[in-house]
Amino acid sequence: MSDTWFDRHRPRLDAAVAAIASREYYSAFDESPSPRVYGEEAAPQGRAAFDAWLGAEFPAATPGADGTVATERSPYGFDLGVRYPRVTAVDELLAAAAAGMRAWREVGPDGRAGVCLEILDRLHARIFEIANAVQHTSGQAFVMAFQAGGAHALDRALESIAYAWIEMSRTPRTTLWEKPGRGEPLRMEKTFTVVPRGVALVIGCNTFPTWNSWPGLFASLVTGNAVVVKPHPGAVLPLAITVQACQEVLAEAGFDPHLVTLAAEERDDRLAATLARRPEVRIIDFTGGNAFGEWLETHAEQAVVFTEKAGVNTVVLDSTSDFAGMCQNLAFSFSLYSGQMCTAPQNVFVPAGGIETDQGHKTVDDIAAGIGGALDRLLGDDARAVELLGGIVNEDIPARVDKAAGTGRVLVASREVRHPAYADATVRTPLLVALTADDADAYANECFGPVAYLIETSETDESIALFGLTVTRHGAMTASVYSTSDQIVDEMREAALEVGVALSENLTGSVFVNQSAAFSDFHGTGANPAANATYTDGAYVASRFRVVQSRRHV
Amino acid sequence: MSDTWFDRHRPRLDAAVAAIASREYYSAFDESPSPRVYGEEAAPQGRAAFDAWLGAEFPAATPGADGTVATERSPYGFDLGVRYPRVTAVDELLAAAAAGMRAWREVGPDGRAGVCLEILDRLHARIFEIANAVQHTSGQAFVMAFQAGGAHALDRALESIAYAWIEMSRTPRTTLWEKPGRGEPLRMEKTFTVVPRGVALVIGCNTFPTWNSWPGLFASLVTGNAVVVKPHPGAVLPLAITVQACQEVLAEAGFDPHLVTLAAEERDDRLAATLARRPEVRIIDFTGGNAFGEWLETHAEQAVVFTEKAGVNTVVLDSTSDFAGMCQNLAFSFSLYSGQMCTAPQNVFVPAGGIETDQGHKTVDDIAAGIGGALDRLLGDDARAVELLGGIVNEDIPARVDKAAGTGRVLVASREVRHPAYADATVRTPLLVALTADDADAYANECFGPVAYLIETSETDESIALFGLTVTRHGAMTASVYSTSDQIVDEMREAALEVGVALSENLTGSVFVNQSAAFSDFHGTGANPAANATYTDGAYVASRFRVVQSRRHV
Repeated sequence: MSDTWFDRHRPRLDAAVAAIASREYYSAFDESPSPRVYGEEAAPQGRAAFDAWLGAEFPAATPGADGTVATERSPYGFDLGVRYPRVTAVDELLAAAAAGMRAWREVGPDGRAGVCLEILDRLHARIFEIANAVQHTSGQAFVMAFQAGGAHALDRALESIAYAWIEMSRTPRTTLWEKPGRGEPLRMEKTFTVVPRGVALVIGCNTFPTWNSWPGLFASLVTGNAVVVKPHPGAVLPLAITVQACQEVLAEAGFDPHLVTLAAEERDDRLAATLARRPEVRIIDFTGGNAFGEWLETHAEQAVVFTEKAGVNTVVLDSTSDFAGMCQNLAFSFSLYSGQMCTAPQNVFVPAGGIETDQGHKTVDDIAAGIGGALDRLLGDDARAVELLGGIVNEDIPARVDKAAGTGRVLVASREVRHPAYADATVRTPLLVALTADDADAYANECFGPVAYLIETSETDESIALFGLTVTRHGAMTASVYSTSDQIVDEMREAALEVGVALSENLTGSVFVNQSAAFSDFHGTGANPAANATYTDGAYVASRFRVVQSRRHV
Repeated sequence: MSDTWFDRHRPRLDAAVAAIASREYYSAFDESPSPRVYGEEAAPQGRAAFDAWLGAEFPAATPGADGTVATERSPYGFDLGVRYPRVTAVDELLAAAAAGMRAWREVGPDGRAGVCLEILDRLHARIFEIANAVQHTSGQAFVMAFQAGGAHALDRALESIAYAWIEMSRTPRTTLWEKPGRGEPLRMEKTFTVVPRGVALVIGCNTFPTWNSWPGLFASLVTGNAVVVKPHPGAVLPLAITVQACQEVLAEAGFDPHLVTLAAEERDDRLAATLARRPEVRIIDFTGGNAFGEWLETHAEQAVVFTEKAGVNTVVLDSTSDFAGMCQNLAFSFSLYSGQMCTAPQNVFVPAGGIETDQGHKTVDDIAAGIGGALDRLLGDDARAVELLGGIVNEDIPARVDKAAGTGRVLVASREVRHPAYADATVRTPLLVALTADDADAYANECFGPVAYLIETSETDESIALFGLTVTRHGAMTASVYSTSDQIVDEMREAALEVGVALSENLTGSVFVNQSAAFSDFHGTGANPAANATYTDGAYVASRFRVVQSRRHV
């Protein structure tokens, strides 16, 4: 069955392999939720499937569980009430996870790739259900949940499967080695076997439960490891559905379904920390805050640890040939999912004397007004605004926005938006605050949520220097620059290479610094404190397995 | 210059790239020290070059050094007396190492590969000098020093350069990304740049100063990092020559020669530990004992750490169709460099009732006698014996051999051999001791030196179980099995896959379990406690650099 699946999905795998080598545009899963693409029934059926979970017990097959937990509340203002098995016996869970690993190893790279690609197909068939689950755990607006949490997450999963499959396929299964000698050559047959590291642990986050978890999950699974999925208590359902699809396909192909398990917990159970230090756990993928990420990097000594934490994303404004496009692009980036993205820009450095543009010289206040106007156009209508902003993911954020407003002069105030469909949803527009280069206390750390700072510097050189300093110290997932000067762009490129962050230049259209395209853009670099890994490159997959050889004369 | 070198060495690089994909036989550097290969003058000139270093000051360009150290004594019984700069100011050393990294990054993967391949050529031109330096630091006999320390080390270095070059070349330098849309496609130009992690630290060992150091050194250098080489105080000269060759080529190509530096020390300076925790040091390659290796793995948190430590290598004897060949092969493996190899077999498990062979049933004492006879044939003549045994690398070993003789019944005694040319050399033949399965206190740890145990078990199944247990707990670099039963070989293969160690089956000719062939055999697996890395695979190179991208509309 796994071989049949491999053959069936081979064209998609080949296309992905070609795309990651060329870095040209490729997508395997349509990002449009339109009925013209997915059919008239897909959306209502997906919504109905999601609704059916509300208040129900999720039939997760989790060994070592006792009782249930129900920890999720939609940022749109209602409790999901889905009950999941609560893990209490970690020994039992890990033993069950490992039990199926020999058969899973023995089917080999192609067989495992076939199973994993089939799982992606099953998840794709449930994309509307997943989109609803992502929307009502992360707070993302529906279309974004469909795209980032569905189609793009599937593309990222496919990308990591492709990378891992290439890596496993670099060494042949067998070879004949003939060393010339004086008489007969020395001849040996050698066998090379991909073996897993052990049990892998995936620790999910609240904001991107699928997009940030699937690359690690599938990279570990396809390389032969069992995977324990520990979702954020606020975003369990998208990963419960994921695990269900994995178990279904594994069982169909005759493998132990417990090769992938769901490990849900109460908010204070600290299950991730317990699992992370178990000797059986040899790989950890984590997305979340710096404190726990750094704890994992230093304390989970027995495991290879991949982390995506937080950083401070920077924009350097120097000059532009499209002032309106620049303001529009920045306003969109601040607004998308209320800035609750690890890739959203926060610090905008601008010379105190203003910048040259196609509309003449613009002062800092002109720039603020330009961005403010663009925000008004994007968010002036509540019904449209909520489709861009989504909901505020947790209750700490409104207070953080209020506090940020006190750190400097408010250029654009944050506004509460009333969601037309969900009266209890918490929705906020972005806050823009004026600071100066001396206000590092305010801008040098991530202020997670709809907050951006317009920071006056003496000149662009200081902006670039401050960019370098903050990224070196605090990390960043993204950076961008606006300049009509080749020299300034070159300086910014060099600074970005030095501190190890990806750079977007002069984005004035419909590509945004927050967004990375699977198969072409790397997400994170692993070269600064915000993340020690990239989605996806060779380093992300190569250490998830080992090659063990045997040799004999022939 | 670096581009010219890349073009010139491209055929060799291409051949290496093809070999690591096919794992078929390949070698770029002739392993025969014969005058027919290297010319009549090569050997005497190399010896003269080595002799000229004795008692001299080595002209190493090491920033941050003050005064000199002379720490080397040949296992053949004389002090080398070579003086090297002693590192005292680590700040200065690391600043100098990093100073040239931007230019080194900017020349790109091909240019760096050209420089590294040219360095290999320069080292190859000094192969006899290096062989003498390896002989008189490690104690290896000359031919082994020439092969393992010269030709094979060059092959392993080439292998790691090839792996790293492939890895860096997987992503194009630029691409055009076109996303189809309703009207015009979205078009972006993207640039991808390989950036180094930082300063790399290579910590050398006494027994294989080049073979074990060059893969890490060149993997880090070719990926853009600066490399600080910290040799073992007992084996500085081979790495001093290495650094000299690197600096010479770097300077010729217009790069900062301090991209590779020699960091020598007095025996108690603990320079490796100091360097290993510096924030500038982002990659560490270590070969040596378990205690410091594990300390590095857990304490050098800022760095990616590759370790090759110690393990307990096992042979399972079940049956054989070539008893004489088996005894001969084992005797050779015990004798080669006096068992002072991380790959040398130590524990030979055999059923107490003996084994079936082509010469009929053989008891444990018969097997011991067979191995003893083979040892006599190999080592009976002192002049021939020293060419296989080499010298004992440090003064702890003779006492360890004596102690091991007290742990059980001595089957073959260790004998002192008089070196015909070096009266003060310490040379010992292997000790073979009879133990039982219950004597784990004696056999479960590495007894580094010419010591092997013949361990009686109830049957082969127990032998295989004990093999699994010791490797899981203590690690192993190699394992081997002798059996005429397909089922037993299959069981042993499965056990080797489970515990993650490479297996050699029924070696009765001139391939030995101690030896791995570059481009075909992996050295270590990274899958058991003896080593967390392999020479060389994707995982060994992929995390030594990162890719940083920039993108812009076109």
